Amino acid sequence: METPFTRLKGGVGAPQGFLTSAVSCGIKNPDSDRLDLALIYSEKPCTSAGTFTTNRVKAAPVRVSQAHLRKGELRAVIANSGNANACTGLLGIRDANAMCDAVAKPLKLKRTEIGVASTGVIGLPMPMVRLEPQYVQLLEKLSPDHGSDVAAAIITSDTHAKEVAISFDLGEHRVRIGGCVKGAGMISPSMATMLCFITTDAKISSDNLRKAVLECVEDSFNRITIDGDMSTNDTVIVLANGASGMPSFRRNSALCKQFRCALRWLMLELAKAVVRDGERVTKFVTVTVKGARTYLDAKKVAEAVCKSALVKASWNGGDPNWGRIIHAVGYSRARIREELVDIHIGGKAACLGGLQAETPMDELRAAVSLPEFEISINLNQGDAEYTMYSSDLSPEYIDFNRSEYAYWKQARKDGLV
Amino acid sequence: METPFTRLKGGVGAPQGFLTSAVSCGIKNPDSDRLDLALIYSEKPCTSAGTFTTNRVKAAPVRVSQAHLRKGELRAVIANSGNANACTGLLGIRDANAMCDAVAKPLKLKRTEIGVASTGVIGLPMPMVRLEPQYVQLLEKLSPDHGSDVAAAIITSDTHAKEVAISFDLGEHRVRIGGCVKGAGMISPSMATMLCFITTDAKISSDNLRKAVLECVEDSFNRITIDGDMSTNDTVIVLANGASGMPSFRRNSALCKQFRCALRWLMLELAKAVVRDGERVTKFVTVTVKGARTYLDAKKVAEAVCKSALVKASWNGGDPNWGRIIHAVGYSRARIREELVDIHIGGKAACLGGLQAETPMDELRAAVSLPEFEISINLNQGDAEYTMYSSDLSPEYIDFNRSEYAYWKQARKDGLV
Repeated sequence: METPFTRLKGGVGAPQGFLTSAVSCGIKNPDSDRLDLALIYSEKPCTSAGTFTTNRVKAAPVRVSQAHLRKGELRAVIANSGNANACTGLLGIRDANAMCDAVAKPLKLKRTEIGVASTGVIGLPMPMVRLEPQYVQLLEKLSPDHGSDVAAAIITSDTHAKEVAISFDLGEHRVRIGGCVKGAGMISPSMATMLCFITTDAKISSDNLRKAVLECVEDSFNRITIDGDMSTNDTVIVLANGASGMPSFRRNSALCKQFRCALRWLMLELAKAVVRDGERVTKFVTVTVKGARTYLDAKKVAEAVCKSALVKASWNGGDPNWGRIIHAVGYSRARIREELVDIHIGGKAACLGGLQAETPMDELRAAVSLPEFEISINLNQGDAEYTMYSSDLSPEYIDFNRSEYAYWKQARKDGLV
Repeated sequence: METPFTRLKGGVGAPQGFLTSAVSCGIKNPDSDRLDLALIYSEKPCTSAGTFTTNRVKAAPVRVSQAHLRKGELRAVIANSGNANACTGLLGIRDANAMCDAVAKPLKLKRTEIGVASTGVIGLPMPMVRLEPQYVQLLEKLSPDHGSDVAAAIITSDTHAKEVAISFDLGEHRVRIGGCVKGAGMISPSMATMLCFITTDAKISSDNLRKAVLECVEDSFNRITIDGDMSTNDTVIVLANGASGMPSFRRNSALCKQFRCALRWLMLELAKAVVRDGERVTKFVTVTVKGARTYLDAKKVAEAVCKSALVKASWNGGDPNWGRIIHAVGYSRARIREELVDIHIGGKAACLGGLQAETPMDELRAAVSLPEFEISINLNQGDAEYTMYSSDLSPEYIDFNRSEYAYWKQARKDGLV
């Protein structure tokens, strides 16, 4: 697809002045040599912003990163996959702090300048003994060239690393934004088992950055759902170091809007990549609700449709089952009138005024058999709209998620439980 | 299990003064001879009450039965499986009325004394041409002995018919209650793709009956979930004809309470039977939330846990994954404190104070590998409680629900679409 931005390689390493690194600790499996511990570091001071899970059960690294962000500005992020460090109590907090301390001193930073994130199984203590020997190498490997290693180190059940980097002109200066993300399971509106790190060499005040991040997350990561489960570890952290040399811009200036536009585009690219790479996903479905009385009504309808197990099963089966879609519209608690609802699948009318349309079934089936298609629902009651990005639900998803017992056995072997 | 009631055979036919019948029309499949059209009729005038889906997309028979109940008292119910008569517009209303008319005249009743219910695929017109030739036989077969045929005629993807009948002493009179239910898919709190018919020869005023039904449905059918989808057709209809000879009782009298207790017990038996026979279900799980600040908080937690795809997948895999349970507790929007949460699985501590308990994992696995087990969640913040009945989610459920295209092909063959 054409983009208004120049794509760059290198993900979070692409913006000027950021060094990145990743190493292998065997956190989930001591016999594996896949990368599972990553570090992002800005050579210059940064402004920073983050959004986190709204789950009341929050992983230790989420609590620690939130506290650090409140105290000031982050300049580095350490992140691991293989263990979520969630439901681990005071021990978990101690371990998350220890991860920060391990890199703070060598980088000459305060502990509170470090963000920390973890993803993986819930409820098992971190096997710190396997991280500790690798910190030296993690710091030694820091370079502008390892951005893609960070993307690789944070994935869990994802099938591939996901990163995007772009450059664009902001006034007279060339600016870069780079990001990586992991998703796969526990993906739902209001964030996901999702870690996302974004770096930029734009110069932007903390306050402006915080507002931009909240707004862009609302339009991207909060609009995706795979399985409707919301994780304990969701984290988006954005670091801006101003290394592009640009002057700071005012909120609501044209340059600020241009930057927000680029950040939103990049976040939406990453969010869609999360859905496309969802656990055992075979379809990427864009659900657009139009004609709602209010934004909230449109959102309720989109969320009900995108989360319905029966709708998602029919997508998996390539079945253009508008009856299941309208039944989810009906129980969404939005104000709808059955006799006004139109549903188009892949641009073709499936249901008009609450009744079966005359489109030949074979044409609708052809639309739903594509790997990506759009469901458009018009409530014909107002002007409000909402768009979400969802996936099918496959027998393989359930099969894949039947047991995490292997993790427990490993933890027992490690003497952690 | 010991019950305080005497169990009877014959389901809705067991109470005095009710005649029942069922025939085969081939509504879903013209080549099949399974029963798919049923009739329940009281020889004496009745009081009646019903509860219906809260989905804003309501099937035609739901709209018609609601209107009839508002106008007076039902004395008969006609019900079919194989087609939901939902999203069928004015044609659907005409067809539902026609079903009432077909039995009203021969039974010398007004149309408004008939309840009507349908279950099956959504969005296809009723193949009335296949029902019409069978009405005569449906009426001729009316007898006290065909209650179990009614239970058989209303099932769809259920693996077996589900009915319960009991008798008990109410003061000096022997009273009977009989009921049948169909469930299987689209089962969620606030009712389900569920049809439930209950007959009793107790004598109870309309007003008392309505209150008793609302209260008992809240404690039974509104507490079950299989797939979290809420149907367009959910219907519970209760007919009371007083044929036991007992005098009418006052609301809040001891006899009234005794009757409500029996009705609640019977509805809960039927509701649990629906979960046990859910589509491709292998586990029956009772989730009890205790120690909540409010009833609503307890309910939110129970619903979040019972609806989580990841929790249900772990039950399917026999994995005592308390981490997934507490993550659903966390996103339930109830007021909880992670460090206070205790989770017991099959009576054994899995999580205490938000942390892994010391129970050996093998003991927890043994608990979850049983076909029926209990999850007890104590929030330790108050006195409110809530119990729900749920099931696992299996790869086979998704596979089973991938496509209803065969129905459409049949409808095309019938010239209905």
